[in-house]
Amino acid sequence: MQCSTMQTQRAGRRSAKAAAQQGVASMHIGGRVCTPLVSAGCKAARAAPAASRAPSVKVQATATIEKAAGPAATASSGGAGTRVMIIGGDGYCGWATALHLSARGYEVCIVDNLCRRQFDLTLGLDTLTPIATIHDRVRKWAEVSGKHISLQIGDICDWEFLSQAFTSFQPEHVVHFGEQRSAPYSMIDRQKAVFTQTNNVVGTLNVLFAIKELKPDCHLVKLGTMGEYGTPNIDIEEGYLTVTHNGRTDTLPYPKQGNSFYHLSKIHDSTNMLFTCKAWKVAATDLNQGVVYGVRTEETMADPMLLNRYDYDGIFGTALNRFVVQAAVGHPLTVYGKGGQTRGFLDIRDTVRCIQIAIDNPASRGEMRVFNQFTEQFSVNQLAEIVSREGSKLGLDVVVTNVPNPRVELEEHYYNAKHTKLVELGLQPHLLADSMIDSLLEFAVQYRDRVRMELIKPAVDWRKTGVKVNTMGAAVAK
Amino acid sequence: MQCSTMQTQRAGRRSAKAAAQQGVASMHIGGRVCTPLVSAGCKAARAAPAASRAPSVKVQATATIEKAAGPAATASSGGAGTRVMIIGGDGYCGWATALHLSARGYEVCIVDNLCRRQFDLTLGLDTLTPIATIHDRVRKWAEVSGKHISLQIGDICDWEFLSQAFTSFQPEHVVHFGEQRSAPYSMIDRQKAVFTQTNNVVGTLNVLFAIKELKPDCHLVKLGTMGEYGTPNIDIEEGYLTVTHNGRTDTLPYPKQGNSFYHLSKIHDSTNMLFTCKAWKVAATDLNQGVVYGVRTEETMADPMLLNRYDYDGIFGTALNRFVVQAAVGHPLTVYGKGGQTRGFLDIRDTVRCIQIAIDNPASRGEMRVFNQFTEQFSVNQLAEIVSREGSKLGLDVVVTNVPNPRVELEEHYYNAKHTKLVELGLQPHLLADSMIDSLLEFAVQYRDRVRMELIKPAVDWRKTGVKVNTMGAAVAK
Repeated sequence: MQCSTMQTQRAGRRSAKAAAQQGVASMHIGGRVCTPLVSAGCKAARAAPAASRAPSVKVQATATIEKAAGPAATASSGGAGTRVMIIGGDGYCGWATALHLSARGYEVCIVDNLCRRQFDLTLGLDTLTPIATIHDRVRKWAEVSGKHISLQIGDICDWEFLSQAFTSFQPEHVVHFGEQRSAPYSMIDRQKAVFTQTNNVVGTLNVLFAIKELKPDCHLVKLGTMGEYGTPNIDIEEGYLTVTHNGRTDTLPYPKQGNSFYHLSKIHDSTNMLFTCKAWKVAATDLNQGVVYGVRTEETMADPMLLNRYDYDGIFGTALNRFVVQAAVGHPLTVYGKGGQTRGFLDIRDTVRCIQIAIDNPASRGEMRVFNQFTEQFSVNQLAEIVSREGSKLGLDVVVTNVPNPRVELEEHYYNAKHTKLVELGLQPHLLADSMIDSLLEFAVQYRDRVRMELIKPAVDWRKTGVKVNTMGAAVAK
Repeated sequence: MQCSTMQTQRAGRRSAKAAAQQGVASMHIGGRVCTPLVSAGCKAARAAPAASRAPSVKVQATATIEKAAGPAATASSGGAGTRVMIIGGDGYCGWATALHLSARGYEVCIVDNLCRRQFDLTLGLDTLTPIATIHDRVRKWAEVSGKHISLQIGDICDWEFLSQAFTSFQPEHVVHFGEQRSAPYSMIDRQKAVFTQTNNVVGTLNVLFAIKELKPDCHLVKLGTMGEYGTPNIDIEEGYLTVTHNGRTDTLPYPKQGNSFYHLSKIHDSTNMLFTCKAWKVAATDLNQGVVYGVRTEETMADPMLLNRYDYDGIFGTALNRFVVQAAVGHPLTVYGKGGQTRGFLDIRDTVRCIQIAIDNPASRGEMRVFNQFTEQFSVNQLAEIVSREGSKLGLDVVVTNVPNPRVELEEHYYNAKHTKLVELGLQPHLLADSMIDSLLEFAVQYRDRVRMELIKPAVDWRKTGVKVNTMGAAVAK
């Protein structure tokens, strides 16, 4: 973590001020300023012993307050002990999902090799939010919620490790977030392109073999991406397309066109999964997820040490998260190219709910079910407009600038993607307009002293992806 | 190589007899029986010094005669020194292609890591035909033809090696056969599934990076497979499908459905290539090849030491090659399941011609061109019928038996695959009926004493692919 002492101190002061503005008492923990949780009450105070073990503890205690109550409020025993392995459970979506399910009575095991943190260390990046180690996170969650999350640290590309994790935990569902998930990262250089595809494809192959050999009735919930579809000039359906051609009709896998080695790796996964569902009767749900925004979920806001990561840099930051941070720090919103690029988006609170829905309504043996997991679609220009409008309500002076598009993609195109299946199963979307007003911009303003301006700009050019190894400074190379 | 001394001796005697039946004088080389080439004349005798270096030389001098003349007959300088790198140039299709192009004036560099030979060693398999080492092959070719083929032994997954091979040879075309190409091999166990996908995907990624960074105007001719399409219930087009859906129309990559980890790896390659053609303006031709049969090409028959491999075993043998060998040795033709499985087929003499056509009519920069490379389609039952009919003409008593299908595939299905683009560019197909009469069965009869009966039967069950490492005896495990 490359946050300087000065930045840390400034972040601490600002968070205290922000907390004071919201009428919440702040307190000192380990020499830092802490905002206790109203809802979690006395449990939050238990953060003190762990936090005082600095410097290994990264929590800077600047979490603010979820308006709803802590995990107890909506938690239930609906999970009824269902055993869910969450691969990549230390990541952005994975951590939120792990807590969401644990709070609701599912028996959760996190499997993670912590490579996401290693990427930040290697490239000199950092999350906007200060996050605790996975070990501290899980310990704190037990304190706050009374729920145990088991933890297996290792690499699913290592069969010896994965098979033992499977055998010991005996999952009924595997939620697989455990992949290198950044398009720009996959385009940094040849090594990272090869790493992304081998890591993602081999990891998923191993999971499929683990299910076949060790737990054949285990349901796989695999995170894909809406980016697998590319931007076809026809409506995007949920996984399959019924085609009539020369007088004959068949329902076929929707044609895929990825626009980075990362997106392509997810296509490879989907292609492999479809085969194993047919050949081995694996039960799989492929969630083609849109761009996720936001950081707050009920559970991750229950204690500073449970706080989720929030990426805004040019490599791991998604467009909307980046715009929000840019608005907060007075940086122009950097629209790539013409800004007509349209994609599906969803709030991270809907991500966790979608996973739960997929688990509660599993695919059948031999079924490769595909859901498009997003709630609204926006063009990049529309996102910039929304952030500008909402920013001005908070007194921020938001400027939009068009920068040369580092990616190779259509900047003006038709886009109409279906996303009804999860809604039919009960998803009630959080909408962006409400989230913006609710918390998104305020949250970024709260943490803006941690923003490192040099990380914001585009870091990787699709046309210049090369064979020269780029081990550091990719984000600040330009 | 597991051919016993006794088998070798028997093969020698039989080949001498076969040669005598065809009115060709035979001679002894290094204590073995050799059939000299009529067309190559005195050049064939030059095999002696190399062959006497046994045991490293595997040539058993049992090649028979191509009715047409040796390489000089149709060779020309049409290639005009065009620099063609053939990755996998020691393999079945690659070796035939290397000689075909070299004979016609192309400047050829073979790149190969010899893994195909290693697979045979590991699994206890062997080609029906005795083949020389790649070093002896290339030396002999220089003697016979006066043409030099350069040789780079190494693994294209090793970037250091590939980049140096590229830089030194400066190819104008890369013909990429260099992949693990057996569906059953990819289904032996988890390790071989993972190997197949990583080897094939990483190798092709490296080739794409090499083109982008080291020789951007180099044309890639990549061997795909008709198996990428699976068996859809609509016509199979050449690479792309124009779809009208909800009133809008687009031309999209044809939907792919592979039926083994091998076939899936080729889909991954195609998906990756399409992206690099768009993003980097790579010029690529993806040849979705059908099942290749036969062993004779003009050049590989020009000298015993140039003889091509011929696989008939349950792992690397394709259906037709296997049926031909089964007929020759009096083994029932083993039809998997109902036998309605229909595929595209082509003679290896058309494979080499198709590659030349693709080179002589290259794709444009940014174009991902797809040809379906086969000439006729047959069901497995039709193949069995043809082999039975033609076998009886040779006095063979051919029996057909249906065995449980070790694969997971439709055994009765619609199949109509387009294959006009190569014909439009000048391909004049060799048809199976003619090839059977011409040489295919006679050739198998000639070598039948080398047949190892235990290798013929199905060796790998799609449903039983496991995680237990199967390092040897896969072919004889049942």
